Amino acid sequence: MADGRIYNFSAGPSMMPVPVLEKAAAQMLNYEGSGMSVMEMSHRSKYYDDIINGAQDAFRRVMNVPDNYQILFMQGGATMQFSAIPLNLMVTGKADYAITGNFARGAYKEAKKYGEIHVAASSEADNFTWIPKQEQLDLDPEADYFYICANNTIFGTEWNYDPETGKVPVVADMSSNIMSKPIDFTKYGVVYGGAQKNMGPAGMAVVVIREDLMGHYRENMPVLLDYKLMADKNSMYNTPPTYSIYMFKLMVEWVEQMGGVSVMDERARKRSGLLYDYLDASDLFKGAAQKDSRSRMNVCFRTGDPELDKKFVAESVKAGMSNLKGHRLVGGMRASIYNAMPMEGVEHLLKFMENFEKNNK
Amino acid sequence: MADGRIYNFSAGPSMMPVPVLEKAAAQMLNYEGSGMSVMEMSHRSKYYDDIINGAQDAFRRVMNVPDNYQILFMQGGATMQFSAIPLNLMVTGKADYAITGNFARGAYKEAKKYGEIHVAASSEADNFTWIPKQEQLDLDPEADYFYICANNTIFGTEWNYDPETGKVPVVADMSSNIMSKPIDFTKYGVVYGGAQKNMGPAGMAVVVIREDLMGHYRENMPVLLDYKLMADKNSMYNTPPTYSIYMFKLMVEWVEQMGGVSVMDERARKRSGLLYDYLDASDLFKGAAQKDSRSRMNVCFRTGDPELDKKFVAESVKAGMSNLKGHRLVGGMRASIYNAMPMEGVEHLLKFMENFEKNNK
Repeated sequence: MADGRIYNFSAGPSMMPVPVLEKAAAQMLNYEGSGMSVMEMSHRSKYYDDIINGAQDAFRRVMNVPDNYQILFMQGGATMQFSAIPLNLMVTGKADYAITGNFARGAYKEAKKYGEIHVAASSEADNFTWIPKQEQLDLDPEADYFYICANNTIFGTEWNYDPETGKVPVVADMSSNIMSKPIDFTKYGVVYGGAQKNMGPAGMAVVVIREDLMGHYRENMPVLLDYKLMADKNSMYNTPPTYSIYMFKLMVEWVEQMGGVSVMDERARKRSGLLYDYLDASDLFKGAAQKDSRSRMNVCFRTGDPELDKKFVAESVKAGMSNLKGHRLVGGMRASIYNAMPMEGVEHLLKFMENFEKNNK
Repeated sequence: MADGRIYNFSAGPSMMPVPVLEKAAAQMLNYEGSGMSVMEMSHRSKYYDDIINGAQDAFRRVMNVPDNYQILFMQGGATMQFSAIPLNLMVTGKADYAITGNFARGAYKEAKKYGEIHVAASSEADNFTWIPKQEQLDLDPEADYFYICANNTIFGTEWNYDPETGKVPVVADMSSNIMSKPIDFTKYGVVYGGAQKNMGPAGMAVVVIREDLMGHYRENMPVLLDYKLMADKNSMYNTPPTYSIYMFKLMVEWVEQMGGVSVMDERARKRSGLLYDYLDASDLFKGAAQKDSRSRMNVCFRTGDPELDKKFVAESVKAGMSNLKGHRLVGGMRASIYNAMPMEGVEHLLKFMENFEKNNK
């Protein structure tokens, strides 16, 4: 790869498009003739108004967010949303959670502080290798919401359908697959994501919420987690993470320039398809997730021999790739292939896998 | 100023040193041969370990932070700390607050959600033009802590002494004067600051806390605000704001290269001294804060004629300066002159003020 850059398969923070980084570098000392960096800019200035409003507009356009949904920029990543979701959405005090991985479980644990939480489905007994089907969901029609983690980074699984819940709003943590495909927001009450996979640097969450779900924030809780307040203040109740929002805008604009989220989806299917096809045909490597639950974003695989896995990872680094080691909860390898991963990166990995398989029969 | 950059007197986010921005731009696509941007780096990687630990070490060195104080990186800026402080420090449920400005009042309001809060002093009746003296503080020896806002950005006042409280820990919001002078941390239980004045881009708070004060986090509250948890996890319970921490490290290293915080203090006194001397001698301009409470960071002044103030601000923009308009709660003008403001910026402003005074007698 040019300029000494490597193919970075990190699960997040993760690879970003070179044109986005180049633009950020070029504008670092003087943003569009303002005489200052975006980092130095008052969040109450005209220049910054254009950035934050431009970021929202671009996301609404690219993701086709309906008018009755607000787009909020919040701090604390997805983990802060584990708290914010129940604190904002619990009215009767009951919610359903699907436990499909580590972060779904983290959200569930946090929600239990604030209400009565029912497990609607869990694949924990199978080390989270699958996503429940619609008919496997044990849903309470009286729940305040139904919570899912739409893509499970560690385990390489992804919901490939929008759950049906009747009138109960679905809340989806899309940290690791947002902006990688079109979303029908009318199927969701809240969609949120930490930025650090497809939306920019770590340190921000984007929250898309149906307006009628706001206004129920629990009393005597930290002021900054109140969705209604954040919406009323256009995410500027306090100083927002100004530079993260700017980078987010560049990321959304890049997706738009590339042809939009349908193109991102096509690219993701092509990238992951190449890897899964190879895994299915391979004698050495096995995919970790069940076939019908496979993620387009995180491809987890292993040889079955921990020593050989270790060798694979060590040699991959020498071959110009990084972060292919799987999470300790799964072992083996993981290739995280978000929007910014070029096809050449996957082809490079494939060739490396073929050679590795040949040399380690 | 070179390269079309202007003198930016914004109260925050605010001016950053050119060498820091240049380094960030130069490293944007490939950090020290890693083949990736800091934004793209896994927070669990060796490269990033060096950045986050290096940032803490540099701050400890430059600020002379004692060994029994932890340095935490948290999200949500100072406003999130308004909540975190009472949630972590309240044991008996009582605290004293000094109300010296808008942000002190905000912290007070938030704390009232969680306990019995006593106003130890307030300058609100005088529109926050002064800082209470030690003998004006009505302190409860049984309080869990005594809270101050060490520099009041909007009103241009600054505490010029460390309050004495006996055994009660002092908590100081130093968002707008941290790293601008040496701090005797032994006089404080907690010192914290939002980063966006002297420590980098907005979106992070740095919290320095005496170890024995941790471990009392209130039950059933958002997990991410627990200081003990954050300390135990080296600020990586979840993905930290990785790029903000990197920028913070560059900012601290710049202070060190400039000679340290004593030099920053000298420079701040010189910058603000020039402006205050001029204001005291001027027939047209008046300083807003009482003399013994003046801030070295934010110099607030006015002509007394709102129309003339408006003219001043409009003409200052044409003269290559920005953000000199005062906050609406004070009116008039405000020159925020943090660490990165060069002496030439203040001299440029002074010359402009002299000319303006001459032309508007």
